[in-house]
Amino acid sequence: MSNGLRITVWNEGVHEAGGHPASMATDYPDGMHGAIADGLAQLIPDATIRTAVLADPEHGLTEQVLAETDVLLWWGHIAHERVADEVVERVQRHVLGGMGLLVLHSGHFSKIFIRLMGTTCSLKWRNEGERELVWTVDPTHPIAHGIPHPLVIPHQEMYGEFFDIPDPDDLVFISSFTGGEVFRSGVTFHRGRGRIFYFSPGDQEYPVYQQDGIRQVLANGVKWAAQPDLPRVAPAVEHPARDWFAS
Amino acid sequence: MSNGLRITVWNEGVHEAGGHPASMATDYPDGMHGAIADGLAQLIPDATIRTAVLADPEHGLTEQVLAETDVLLWWGHIAHERVADEVVERVQRHVLGGMGLLVLHSGHFSKIFIRLMGTTCSLKWRNEGERELVWTVDPTHPIAHGIPHPLVIPHQEMYGEFFDIPDPDDLVFISSFTGGEVFRSGVTFHRGRGRIFYFSPGDQEYPVYQQDGIRQVLANGVKWAAQPDLPRVAPAVEHPARDWFAS
Amino acid sequence: MSNGLRITVWNEGVHEAGGHPASMATDYPDGMHGAIADGLAQLIPDATIRTAVLADPEHGLTEQVLAETDVLLWWGHIAHERVADEVVERVQRHVLGGMGLLVLHSGHFSKIFIRLMGTTCSLKWRNEGERELVWTVDPTHPIAHGIPHPLVIPHQEMYGEFFDIPDPDDLVFISSFTGGEVFRSGVTFHRGRGRIFYFSPGDQEYPVYQQDGIRQVLANGVKWAAQPDLPRVAPAVEHPARDWFAS
Amino acid sequence: MSNGLRITVWNEGVHEAGGHPASMATDYPDGMHGAIADGLAQLIPDATIRTAVLADPEHGLTEQVLAETDVLLWWGHIAHERVADEVVERVQRHVLGGMGLLVLHSGHFSKIFIRLMGTTCSLKWRNEGERELVWTVDPTHPIAHGIPHPLVIPHQEMYGEFFDIPDPDDLVFISSFTGGEVFRSGVTFHRGRGRIFYFSPGDQEYPVYQQDGIRQVLANGVKWAAQPDLPRVAPAVEHPARDWFAS
Repeated sequence: MSNGLRITVWNEGVHEAGGHPASMATDYPDGMHGAIADGLAQLIPDATIRTAVLADPEHGLTEQVLAETDVLLWWGHIAHERVADEVVERVQRHVLGGMGLLVLHSGHFSKIFIRLMGTTCSLKWRNEGERELVWTVDPTHPIAHGIPHPLVIPHQEMYGEFFDIPDPDDLVFISSFTGGEVFRSGVTFHRGRGRIFYFSPGDQEYPVYQQDGIRQVLANGVKWAAQPDLPRVAPAVEHPARDWFAS
Repeated sequence: MSNGLRITVWNEGVHEAGGHPASMATDYPDGMHGAIADGLAQLIPDATIRTAVLADPEHGLTEQVLAETDVLLWWGHIAHERVADEVVERVQRHVLGGMGLLVLHSGHFSKIFIRLMGTTCSLKWRNEGERELVWTVDPTHPIAHGIPHPLVIPHQEMYGEFFDIPDPDDLVFISSFTGGEVFRSGVTFHRGRGRIFYFSPGDQEYPVYQQDGIRQVLANGVKWAAQPDLPRVAPAVEHPARDWFAS
Repeated sequence: MSNGLRITVWNEGVHEAGGHPASMATDYPDGMHGAIADGLAQLIPDATIRTAVLADPEHGLTEQVLAETDVLLWWGHIAHERVADEVVERVQRHVLGGMGLLVLHSGHFSKIFIRLMGTTCSLKWRNEGERELVWTVDPTHPIAHGIPHPLVIPHQEMYGEFFDIPDPDDLVFISSFTGGEVFRSGVTFHRGRGRIFYFSPGDQEYPVYQQDGIRQVLANGVKWAAQPDLPRVAPAVEHPARDWFAS
Repeated sequence: MSNGLRITVWNEGVHEAGGHPASMATDYPDGMHGAIADGLAQLIPDATIRTAVLADPEHGLTEQVLAETDVLLWWGHIAHERVADEVVERVQRHVLGGMGLLVLHSGHFSKIFIRLMGTTCSLKWRNEGERELVWTVDPTHPIAHGIPHPLVIPHQEMYGEFFDIPDPDDLVFISSFTGGEVFRSGVTFHRGRGRIFYFSPGDQEYPVYQQDGIRQVLANGVKWAAQPDLPRVAPAVEHPARDWFAS
């Protein structure tokens, strides 16, 4: 039995199930969650990694799964509204209690991210397969360690400002695109006891999660967001009882 | 017709309606919202000020009222759960679109504040009528202009750390209490296009809102949060349409 | 006699005096400080504006001039080392005491900026006349009001990350360049009682300060940095006497 | 030979050498630097710890010592002006290049801290042996792990707001004192590649550095500030050569 980090990679899995885009079959034969999990397994060898999808009972995110998860990664795009509110509240509760969360790409519009940010999380976008350059603006941040400056992604959907989020705790990466747009592509937050990292590269149409530098960012992000020694607390968000945090 | 700021003071009004505590009749003959509105009227003479309470239709916060409000003040305590979710979403939408919001005292547990923060907003508390000292830690902040250092409140409920909020944009005031606790008592945020100021002093049992220094803080906060020249946009939070912000 | 803001535009003036580059004669017939002052005079009509250059006695920045200045703008490039340390300390003292400061373009390597930041303030650069796009990432910031998104500068020197500064208070603008680099081009700080805005566009080889959008940014920056009602205090930086700030 | 962290504890050592206050002989028989080094040795057993004082050649802070130091701790009080500017510049260069720095108590007025902050670093103070309570306001910060809430210091010099520093990256601790003052007593910054932690408790008149909780904070701070895997770069601060950081 491993003593390593316990990671859960969540993907709505709807593009995969539907076989669109057609490139999915070659770019991601095991789904995007499979590719992400593979990359983490390579770079954090002693981690215990599981995957979960929307179609699983309770979306695969039961109370027990979350209680045994140090860091959850979240990918969603066309099925945000199909995620049950009850599961979203459960995930939020665990984040506030100390679970790490990585929100990826179009996950900016997920219920869980909007709920943790309190804003619309909207942005500009255009899908023309442009080159994205990811620049490090905080070279001492653990998430930036070993990442090329810039990290070059040959083909990507453009995400541009204005990105409607609260001021991040740390601004780690800023991207530019062929069209000249810029985007705060790597930002951190903490909410309650939990650490959150949003990272925008990654899309169902491009094999971004197969790229070494991207995989390194995700592994760095997971290690940064994990707090395995912090006792998990269980705050109630909707029916607040005062002083839960002091217990 | 006035060209001044348009201010709406919201109070659940349940303590007032119920006549408890008994001191309310002498401390706040016109309710806490009445006292707050009086203070603002003195210090921002050209403002148009209205009040609204929970018992009003739609809690007095119709689409039209919010559209005509530059800054909303929010006081709530024992009836947070009775505020309709539809109204909370409407207020959030207006804040993200540019309306200023001042959240007061026990409003830290209001639905609107929790929703905008994404955290539990819990804190420590003890009601023994202790002395509170409010110290300025950002003397150049507009909200601190003209405020005594410290501002002395003879009798107050203690609010103490840990206060479970995201890192504020600006930390303006820190309070201490007779018992030795400390609290980040004046903090600012922005969410979307709106500016938010949380200020903890003020309680149904003590005539805090009758105090000059407190009134000055509230007037400063209103002036800081108001952006009357910014066109109000109308973001959809729950069913995000991309690019609303760019329009 | 005007009641408006008192602005001092400082330029080393060495490019102008030396007549290089040759384009200076047509781009900036009155020097860069002249062009900057003209723009401010148009947009802040009741301001009192003076200019000063390195060759002036005490570089034109006497105790009296600074005491009568609400906001100082600083442009320097090839003569940073020729600015007297005594004048730099005097400027720092006034900034800490409440004077606003706008640092422009190659002023990132000025003694005053390095001294206020505590870092090297170094960056990447390349001068090939590339197109710069200035994107707003904080649309509610007063400095961003009325600025095009993006603001297009046809030809500019490239400034790129990593930019070695402390985390800014507010990140207002991010630029991209033809080559794909990004730069935090508009950032704010406060130090002591003074407000500081660094804005990177502007160069001796391109008529950037003749552009309307740029002039609007500078005028917004001046209005934001000015605190005319704040009594100027006079802190001693090098031989600290405790409690000066409380007096 | 140890692979552990390399720590240098610097103390001006003037109180110790002069035998004042008289309590020093019993409170700190090996000097404050001795007590601090003892605490770190207990809590970070594999660390290599050295001490250095003002009276040492080059104050014990040669180029080689700094090159072999992961984290430097700094205590000074009555001899700030006797620290050679050349040594201060050397320390700054190493901090910007990646060395961690802990500045303790009256070190707020040290040349190195003022230089890195760019402000006066002044504060209020009163020495009457008051009780200090150190409250955690960021419970997930590594420096706060295992620290009592509050940490009680029976007798201390009071340090109070306003504390003239730039906005910290992280606000970890806020203290209150018997007299009711508050102080941001644990704050972090980064400058260049280096991490800085200022912690205010600790004084020559009280045996604060003998206290368990205080020793835990210092050990946590050292571990947080250390970046042993980050290659040390050597920026020039006063005669900037562009692009040093990119090399």
